[in-house]
Formats: sequence, structure tokens, C-alpha cells
Amino acid sequence: MQTIQPLVELHIVEAVPPSLKDNTGDLDRLKKALSCENVRVPNRRIATVAGKFRQAGFRGAAVINVLPGGRELVDFLPEVPPQLVGMALDLGTTHLEACLVDMLTGVVLARGTIENAQIEYGADILARIHFAAKNNGLAVLHDAIITCINELADELAVKIGFAGTDIRAMSVSGNTTMTHFLLGLDPYHLCREPYIPVVNIPEPCMAEELGLKINPASPIWVLPSIGSYFGGDLISGIIASGLDEQEHTSMLIDVGTNAEVVVGNREWLIACAGAAGPALEGGVAKMGMRAGPGAIDQVSIDKDTKEFRYRTIGDLPPKGICGSGIIDLVAELYLSRMIDLRGKFRIDAAGDRLIKQGDGFSLIVAAAEDSADGKPITLSQVDLDALMRSKAAMYSILRTLTNQVGTGFDQLRHIYVAGAFGQHISPRQAIVLGMIPDLPLEVYVPIGNSSLAGAKKILLEEGARSRSVELVKKITYVELNVNQEFMIRFSGARFIPHTDHNLFPSVPFFEDN
Amino acid sequence: MQTIQPLVELHIVEAVPPSLKDNTGDLDRLKKALSCENVRVPNRRIATVAGKFRQAGFRGAAVINVLPGGRELVDFLPEVPPQLVGMALDLGTTHLEACLVDMLTGVVLARGTIENAQIEYGADILARIHFAAKNNGLAVLHDAIITCINELADELAVKIGFAGTDIRAMSVSGNTTMTHFLLGLDPYHLCREPYIPVVNIPEPCMAEELGLKINPASPIWVLPSIGSYFGGDLISGIIASGLDEQEHTSMLIDVGTNAEVVVGNREWLIACAGAAGPALEGGVAKMGMRAGPGAIDQVSIDKDTKEFRYRTIGDLPPKGICGSGIIDLVAELYLSRMIDLRGKFRIDAAGDRLIKQGDGFSLIVAAAEDSADGKPITLSQVDLDALMRSKAAMYSILRTLTNQVGTGFDQLRHIYVAGAFGQHISPRQAIVLGMIPDLPLEVYVPIGNSSLAGAKKILLEEGARSRSVELVKKITYVELNVNQEFMIRFSGARFIPHTDHNLFPSVPFFEDN
Repeated sequence: MQTIQPLVELHIVEAVPPSLKDNTGDLDRLKKALSCENVRVPNRRIATVAGKFRQAGFRGAAVINVLPGGRELVDFLPEVPPQLVGMALDLGTTHLEACLVDMLTGVVLARGTIENAQIEYGADILARIHFAAKNNGLAVLHDAIITCINELADELAVKIGFAGTDIRAMSVSGNTTMTHFLLGLDPYHLCREPYIPVVNIPEPCMAEELGLKINPASPIWVLPSIGSYFGGDLISGIIASGLDEQEHTSMLIDVGTNAEVVVGNREWLIACAGAAGPALEGGVAKMGMRAGPGAIDQVSIDKDTKEFRYRTIGDLPPKGICGSGIIDLVAELYLSRMIDLRGKFRIDAAGDRLIKQGDGFSLIVAAAEDSADGKPITLSQVDLDALMRSKAAMYSILRTLTNQVGTGFDQLRHIYVAGAFGQHISPRQAIVLGMIPDLPLEVYVPIGNSSLAGAKKILLEEGARSRSVELVKKITYVELNVNQEFMIRFSGARFIPHTDHNLFPSVPFFEDN
Repeated sequence: MQTIQPLVELHIVEAVPPSLKDNTGDLDRLKKALSCENVRVPNRRIATVAGKFRQAGFRGAAVINVLPGGRELVDFLPEVPPQLVGMALDLGTTHLEACLVDMLTGVVLARGTIENAQIEYGADILARIHFAAKNNGLAVLHDAIITCINELADELAVKIGFAGTDIRAMSVSGNTTMTHFLLGLDPYHLCREPYIPVVNIPEPCMAEELGLKINPASPIWVLPSIGSYFGGDLISGIIASGLDEQEHTSMLIDVGTNAEVVVGNREWLIACAGAAGPALEGGVAKMGMRAGPGAIDQVSIDKDTKEFRYRTIGDLPPKGICGSGIIDLVAELYLSRMIDLRGKFRIDAAGDRLIKQGDGFSLIVAAAEDSADGKPITLSQVDLDALMRSKAAMYSILRTLTNQVGTGFDQLRHIYVAGAFGQHISPRQAIVLGMIPDLPLEVYVPIGNSSLAGAKKILLEEGARSRSVELVKKITYVELNVNQEFMIRFSGARFIPHTDHNLFPSVPFFEDN
């Protein structure tokens, strides 16, 4: 197991008390008693640190933040505490997820989530960037996210019988816009060509500088980003997966609003981001929803009887369908031949489940009498078309990116799939749709919330901290919006599983489509 | 001439503007365009620096603070300014004296002084330390000194047609207590055994952290101290004199409330401080005053006629006598035999100038009709006794200190005399009194306000900055309050010039005393 080198260290101090023969200043005495040299004390911490050191009788534990520019002595405790709590935070656009970690042992002490309070000012990133440009808008958004983090921190601290101020470090991974809001930086240029962040690699700062109510001297370690569309959450994901440390080439896929993909190994890394997510996130399909209680997350269709079976999260009456449920559903619709290879309903096969809604057909997934609100759960042709675009985009992104470096899919040791998407979808069904490459299932490794997992590593590993900064320089970013090859591939991928059937030998091909 | 390596640097920047092919963040772009590496940007400066860089079209001058922990990028200017103004400040207990310096050329642009506004809360250091212990007292004293510095900064800036915010650096040298007040640190233990400062070597901080109204990003470089009784003003004096860089051994004397003395060379330095000053500062003698307009600063007495001649500062009617005037006066009284070797009035010789005041005699220096307020300017036997103690203390300090290192006075290449004392006194007269060693007059070098001169060097020389910190470790401090040798020497020095006449061969010895 790797040695823990936390973002905050405790140094046990036993200094000789002052005397007429030794008139060293209190703070200078403390520095001398440390086992390491060149420790700085920020001006605004001098009075606190020196005062506590004297009060403790010149012995106890020095609290030292480990920063890229060197060590900073920021607090002094009369006794060595049993735990040293750090908070790893995934700063998402819709939700914040965090865990408290004991930085002495690496043990996770608590975990929780909270809705991003900025939603009140804009549902998505773009709306919020526009809101920020209004009078005082940036300050409002900054305050909202700080308040939200403070709430989550307090909630988690209470869970383990601590106060928020007992949290002594925070690592934050988020997309570039969320990072700007956190730091109070103007996001104006993030969504305007040529899409330039104010900063990609911010220096760590202290909690009190941002208004965070955890311990004021906590270092806030914000994961760096590569550009407007490739944020610290992705860097964090790479660190969590270990992609950048392995000899063999692997891939990391993170699907949110965008699909973000990285391919590489310890020698090189290439990445891109593209709009592939909406239909998968449950944001576009009319009946779509996040993977939460009441969401249909698995569907199977009996080939012969055409009978539907589904599972809901929490075993509740269905409220809607989440991303993995939609993928399952559409793959099953194809395998049971109720849709054709273009993703269109086959009226004859699906007949009794189709109803006319607005301009086109919709398919009843769950009947009105079974659903949570007495209305049928349906999938429309419009939803299907959106999914077809999303899956085509996803496959094209993967193919274009690997092709840039001349790597075949079969050369990938692993494909790490991050987030709720990776946690819930069946790779098999995604392969049937031609969304992801037709590879042995063991190649696919779901890694959960890798943004949070990477942030946790930042709290505990010096190597993770240095890697995060090196990654910014190491990754070659490919802009897909101006990529010709991507557009050509996209057209070919708008069939199930693909126009080139040889790419998906494991998927049944129906001649009569 | 030494190359200037100022505390704040300007780096000319010409960056390639961002494009789709180069999506480096604004701040990261700026850092890359610098000619030096590992430059940090403090969190609270990110928005300002990045915003100004963009607004200036990605070219201009980066403002970089040169700190012991590395370089910090803190501001950006669209054009290289013709001057880069820094402020050197001597933070005295009674007065603040400062100069503005162009850090690009080293030229002094303005100079001025202001009374220390803390006097309202305590005339001397001890009174203020007691005041600080009262409810909110420390904050009141901190605010008073900050306000005072802001006033002086504005006043000097206006003199050269600048605003206070155009001042981009400040170096401060003051005694240890003043430094504590400046930084808002509790001085409680400074005057209580074993006399321990909160900190001797504070990290540089930024103007805005202290509430200073010069440019908020200015580095504030506070000269370190060695202990409660040996402050940054002395370290500054050593730097100004160059004592610590010379092959030959020399001495530095600074007389304020205490006499502070350093002996040494580039290999070693030894220092002490002792109460020798009051009578010399003009604080004790009834007619004593600071060396200001109307102060008698030179006196001569005709040996035959016993006629007095005096000079006043500004050629005004006399108001009192300053330190150098008192030394002149008493030396002349001895040479004209109006006082004896114990410093007592000789009634027969001084008869017609003596008047009875209270318990004893006083000598009329200037007649009532000649003085500024119509009252005679007098010197009492009590004043004389105080001067005798001061001069004995001074000589004993010098002798004890040199004896500690086995150095004879004749081995001293120079004796640097700092402050108003050094500027105004005649070494010859001080030798007559036996206050300072009987050495050729060219050994004595007045160096003016060396506290301010050292602070100026801090603004301009990297070597001065590193020396100041090294000096804290290099100087051996001798505590005179517990020194037996000092007490024995003190008794022997309470005669004019000394009980051992051989120590002062150049001074007339009168057998019949």
C-alpha cells in the first residue's frame, strides 16, 4: 500500500521553553523545533499559531499545509488529534458530492450529496455564465456555491460528531466553469470563441479567502483544468483511473452533459470532449430522469412474447427512465425487432404498444395503472432519434480519438467508464446499440464517481497532486467541433449497430431491415 | 555600483493572443510569457491580474514581488511605467521617517517625517505595551500606526505627483515593539522576563493584509529583530553601515532611549543594548529637548573670560538644549573648570552663573531676556548627575562588549554613530567627557538615520534582504542587565573622563580636582 502523504501534515513538537539565555521568538522557536526546514507562516496566522504554541506550553502538534510552493505552518494543537479530517468534493453542475477522509489513515468517514444551489440562477452552465454577466451576478453565483459547500461540509461533519471547522483541508474537482464560480472568477470567455479560461492551474488558497466555513486555515486544492471544455473533474478521473501511470494504453469515458474521453498511457495522453450526453443523462428524453428512486434502470423484452420486464431504483412504481434504462430499452427493442437499424419503430412488430402522440408514435414502456403518477411511461420516436444521435456521436468520438494516435480498439487494455453512466449501464446493451466498441465485457471497468475518487487521492497522495499539474501539460486536446473526420464517422454510426457490420461481430444482424 | 535587484520587479510581456489552437488560460499564458519560472499568483490577485492582462491585449508589464519563498505575480500594467515607487520606513517610537525611492534607479524621490500617533495612548514603549493589554488596546494601537503610515505615504506621494496607491513596496525597520504593533501581534511578553517576542523573523505580507492604503499588492518587508531589546532598526543599521561585510572589525553605536551597540566584522558580530540614552536624547534633563528649531546644539566657553557662546538650530531664540548641546556644554564646563571630575559644580569658578533652584544649584546657560519664552535656560545638578550616569553607562557598555571578544578600542577601524546623536554631537567633546573612547576623530563616522538607510537598501538589494535574515542568526547578543563586569566598569566610569586617566591621554587632567 502507498504511504499516505496528506495535503495537511501534523508535526509533533517538543520545544525547550524560553529563558533569559534563549530569547528566540515564539514563532521562531516553533519553526526551529520542526523536523523540516523552510516552513513559512502566512502573516495572518502568526498571532494564532504563536499564541496557541505558547498556551500549549511549547509542545503539541503543528498543523502544516503541504503546498506546491513549500510547507506552510497554519495552526497549533495542544495534543495530537486521533483524526485529521479532509473533505474531497466533486463540484458538479447539478449536484455536489463529497466525502470526509481521515488524512492520517485514508479511511473514508462520511459521504453525502447536495443539490447545487446555483440551479436557482440557471439550470445549466451556459445559463449561469449569462447570469454571471449581469450586475452582481458573479458574486451571487459565488456566494451560492460557497453556501452550498458550507452546508454539505457541516452536514457531513455532524454525521461523524465533528464541527465544520474540524475539516482541515479540501480538494475540489469540478468542470472549468464551476471552478471559476468557486474562485469568483469571471466565466465570460469560457463560452466564447476561442473559449479561454481565466486560469487553468490556480494556486491553492485558504478556506477563509473563499468564505468557506471549514477551518479557516484549510488549504483548498482545486484540480487544474485543460480548457473550457476539459475541467478538473476529468483530470481527477484520470488520476482515479491511473490511466497516466500504466504501461498499456487504456481509455477513460466520462458521460455527463458532454462525453469526455481520454486515451493514453504513461507516455502520452490524448483527449477530447463532445456533445454526446443529453439523451444518456436523461435530460432530453421526455420521460428521461436522473438515476434516482423510481427510475426504470433495467428493461428486458421477451423475444417471443414481446413481454416487457423492468426494474426501478428502490423497487418503486416507475416515474421515468434513466440513461441506463433507455439504453437497455432501445437495445432490447432492436433485439426483439420492434425498431429497425435506423432506430425507427417497426409498426407491425410493436403495434399494440404504440400510441399516437402529437406528430408521431410513442411506445408504452409502463402502463398508466402501474406508474407512480397514473400516466403511462413512454418512449417517443423523437426520444429514439435523440438517442441515435447520441450513440452515434459517442462511437464517433471514440473512433476519431483512437484513430488520431493510430490505436485500434483492440489495443485498449481497459475502458474505464466513469459516473452514473458507468455505474448503471450494461456495456453489453451499449455494444448492441453500437455506442461503444464490440470488445470483451471484461475490458469495461466502471469506476463510479471518479471525479470524487481523484479528489480523495489529492488529499492523500503527493504523487496525485504533482500528477494533476503534470497532466495539464501532458494531455493533447483534440477539438472535435472543427474535425472533419468526426463528421464523416458520425454519419456511418447512425445505424444499429453500425453501417459497417463487421465492426460489431457479436451483435445480431437482421437481413430484412 | 551594485546592480539594483528591487523588492518588486517589472517583467516586460509580449504574449501571443489566445486562439482555437491555443486555449491556454489567461493567467497560465501570462506565466508562460515571463522570463522566469515558478512564479506564483496569490489566489486573491488572480482576477485582477488576468483581467488587466487581457484588457491590455496580452502585452505590457507584469509586476512581480520578490519574496524569500519565491516570486509572486501580483499586478499587470498596460505599459512599463517610468518609475516604480517603493517606500522605506523608519518606524520610530516617537517619529516615523520615510523616503520614497524609485526602485528602477535607486533615486530618492521624496522624504518626510510624522509624529507617531500612538503617543496619544502612551508616551513610551512600556506605556503602550500596558495599553495594548487593555480591552481592544492592541487593535487601537495597530489602527493608530497604520493610519499614521497611510498619512505619511499619501503626503510623500503627493509631493511627487503620485497617489498613495502608486507606492508598490514598503520596507519597515523599527524596534521589536513597534514591529509587533504594526503586525497586530500581542507585545505582552516583550517586557516580561524572559522577554520573548511573538516572532523575530516575520514573513513578508501584502499591504492589504495590514490595512495599508498604498497599492494593495505591495509586499511589506519588515526587518527582523533579534529579541525584545534588539529590533529591526538595529539590523537595518548594521546593513546600512556594512559592518557585517567588512574584513576589519568596526563598531556601530545607536543611541535612542537605549544605547545599542554592535561590534564585529564579516566573520562575527556581538551586540548589546543598555539604558544609557535618556540624558542624551533630551528626555531627562529639565531643559532637554529633541534636536529641533530653537534647541541649543553647540556651546563653547571662553577659558579666561568664562563667557558662554551657543548656537541654536534655525538661529532662533533658545527654547532648550538638545543632546549634543548638553554634551558640548558639560565638556566645556569641565575644560573651563566650572565642574569637577565628578561632575559637580565648582561654586567658586561658576559662582555668578549659579542660582539656587529647589534643593540645589542650577547653571544659567542662556539668560531670561535672550530665551524664547522669557525664562532662563538652565542646567541643574540633577541634570548633570543624570548625564554622568549616562556617559558612564555608555563607556562601560562599549568597554564590556569589546572585552567580551578580546578586542581593544584601537583595533576598531571605524565607529559608526547612528541617529541624531551621531549627526549632531562633536566626538571630541564626548571624548572629553569620557563617554566614548579616546581615538583619532576620523575613526568616528556619523551615518545619520541608519534605520531608514537600511530599509532603503532592503528595497533595492537582494543581498541586503538575505543579509538581514542571516544577521539574526549571526549576532551574539550579550545581556548587560545580568552582567557583573558591566557594573564594575560603570563605577570606574563615573568620573571625567575616567578614574583611569591613562585611558584618555588626549583629555586635560587637572591635578587639583
